Amino acid sequence: MFDRFVAPTLRHDDARPPILTQAIPVFGLGESVVAERLGDLMRRNRNPIVGTTASGMVVTVRLRAEGDAALDRASFDALAAEVLARVEPYALGIGACSLAEALGREAQARGVEVVLAESCSGGLAASMICEVPGASAWFAGGVVSYSNELKRRLLGVSAELIERHGAVSRECAEAMARGVLDRLGGSGSASITGIAGPDGGSEAKPVGTVFIATARRANGSIEVRARHFRFPGDRAAIRDRSARSALGALRLHLLDRPDLPLLWERPTR
Amino acid sequence: MFDRFVAPTLRHDDARPPILTQAIPVFGLGESVVAERLGDLMRRNRNPIVGTTASGMVVTVRLRAEGDAALDRASFDALAAEVLARVEPYALGIGACSLAEALGREAQARGVEVVLAESCSGGLAASMICEVPGASAWFAGGVVSYSNELKRRLLGVSAELIERHGAVSRECAEAMARGVLDRLGGSGSASITGIAGPDGGSEAKPVGTVFIATARRANGSIEVRARHFRFPGDRAAIRDRSARSALGALRLHLLDRPDLPLLWERPTR
Repeated sequence: MFDRFVAPTLRHDDARPPILTQAIPVFGLGESVVAERLGDLMRRNRNPIVGTTASGMVVTVRLRAEGDAALDRASFDALAAEVLARVEPYALGIGACSLAEALGREAQARGVEVVLAESCSGGLAASMICEVPGASAWFAGGVVSYSNELKRRLLGVSAELIERHGAVSRECAEAMARGVLDRLGGSGSASITGIAGPDGGSEAKPVGTVFIATARRANGSIEVRARHFRFPGDRAAIRDRSARSALGALRLHLLDRPDLPLLWERPTR
Repeated sequence: MFDRFVAPTLRHDDARPPILTQAIPVFGLGESVVAERLGDLMRRNRNPIVGTTASGMVVTVRLRAEGDAALDRASFDALAAEVLARVEPYALGIGACSLAEALGREAQARGVEVVLAESCSGGLAASMICEVPGASAWFAGGVVSYSNELKRRLLGVSAELIERHGAVSRECAEAMARGVLDRLGGSGSASITGIAGPDGGSEAKPVGTVFIATARRANGSIEVRARHFRFPGDRAAIRDRSARSALGALRLHLLDRPDLPLLWERPTR
C-alpha cells in the first residue's frame, strides 16, 4: 500500500523544482525607501526574486530562488547579505522576528536592562515586549503615567516643566526617559508622550503629534535623545505606531545609532 | 432617471419586512452559562430570536425581531430588559460597548480614579483602558512591575512576602493592589500576577495560574479582594484573559459585587 499510494506522491514532491526563501524584516523605513535602497536587486524577472511586504510598520524583504538558482546556496546567501547591507541597521535580522525580539537581542547582547515610561501609548509598548517569552531577562518593567500627576509622582517630571513646555513636548519626553531610569533603575529606557486623539489636538500640536525619547546609562551619566513624530491614522493607529517607534528608537540607541531618523519622524529643530 | 432607477429600489427597501435588533454584551460568564440563564428565551422558532455569539471573552446576547414582532417595540424592549435581568450584573449594558468602556462608565458614575499594577499581562490591561477615548477622565495610570525588584520599589511589596508566598500568589496580588493605591493615589485598583508561560510553571502553579486582586478605598480604609484563576491557552491567550479579567473584576468591585465569581476563577480556599 505504501508503494502504491504513498511512494508516488513522495517522488512527485521530490520532482518539484527546489525553492529557497529568506525574509529580512526592516523597521523604521517606509516601503518606498526600502525599494529605493534595494534598487537593481528588485528588478523584475530576476531569479532569485527580491520583493517586499509591509505589515505593522515592518517592511519585510523577501528573497525567493527557484530552480537552478535555488541550487546555488552560496550565491543566495551572498544576495541576502547584500540586501542586509543596504538596509542596515534598520534590518531586524535575517529570518522572521518581531521588533520586540530584535530589541531584546540587542539588549541582552549588551547587558542592558530596559525600562519604559508611557503616556499616550498606555502600556502598549510594555505589552509588546512582554509578548516575547523570557522577556524578563532584559525587561524590568515600566510606568504608565497617563496623568500629569503620575508623571510627577512616578518619574519626577516637574510641574514647572509641564507648565512651560506642555506634557506633550520634547522636554517632557526627555524628562520621562531620564526619570524612569532614575526611579526604576535599568540601563536603557524609552518614553512616549503624545496626542492620540480624537480630542486634545491644537494647531501647533495636532492629533498624531508624539515625542519619543530614549536614554542610556553610560559612564555614570545618562545620554538622552528625543524624537518628534507626526503619525497618521486614528487613535488606535497612533498608539500602535508610537509604541513600535519607541521600541525601534531604543534599538537604534542601543546600536549606537540614535542619530538615524525613523519613519514619520520630523527633522530636529 | 431617479424615478426610473433609484425610486423603485427605495420602494423595494421600504417594502422589506421591518427588523429590530439589540446586542447585550456579557463579561465573566461562559457561553453555556449564559444560555442556561436565558433558558426558554432562546427557544428556537421564537420571534424575536435570542441567540449568543462569543468573542474576546465577551458573550453577546443578540435579539432580533422580524415582521409583526418588530412592530411591537414595547414587547421587544421588555424582552431586552428580561435578558438583562437574567445576566446582570455581568451584562456590560444594552448596546455594543467594550469591557473597558463599561468599567469607565462605572468608575465615572462613582467618581473613582482607576490605577493598575500589572506583572504577567505587562501593560495589556492599561492598554485596553487607553483604547477608550477620554479614558484620562477616570484612569490615572499604572505600573508594569515585571521584576520582583520593581514590585518592591514601585509598589512596596516586601521581599519577605515574595520569598514566603512567591511573586505569583494571592498575597502578592493583594499587596500589589494595595501598594498601587498607596503609591499612585487613585481610589480603585486592580493587580495581576501570574505565569503566562511557556516556562515558569510548576506542579502547584502550572502555566495559566494567575492571581488578580482589586482594591477600593472606602471610609479611609482599603477593601481588597483577590481571585485565583487558571486560564487555558498559550502565552498570548493567558495574558489577554488576565488583562480582561482584571478589568471585569474591578468593574464588579465598583458595583459592590466583588463576591461574584468570574469565568475560569477557582473557588476561594
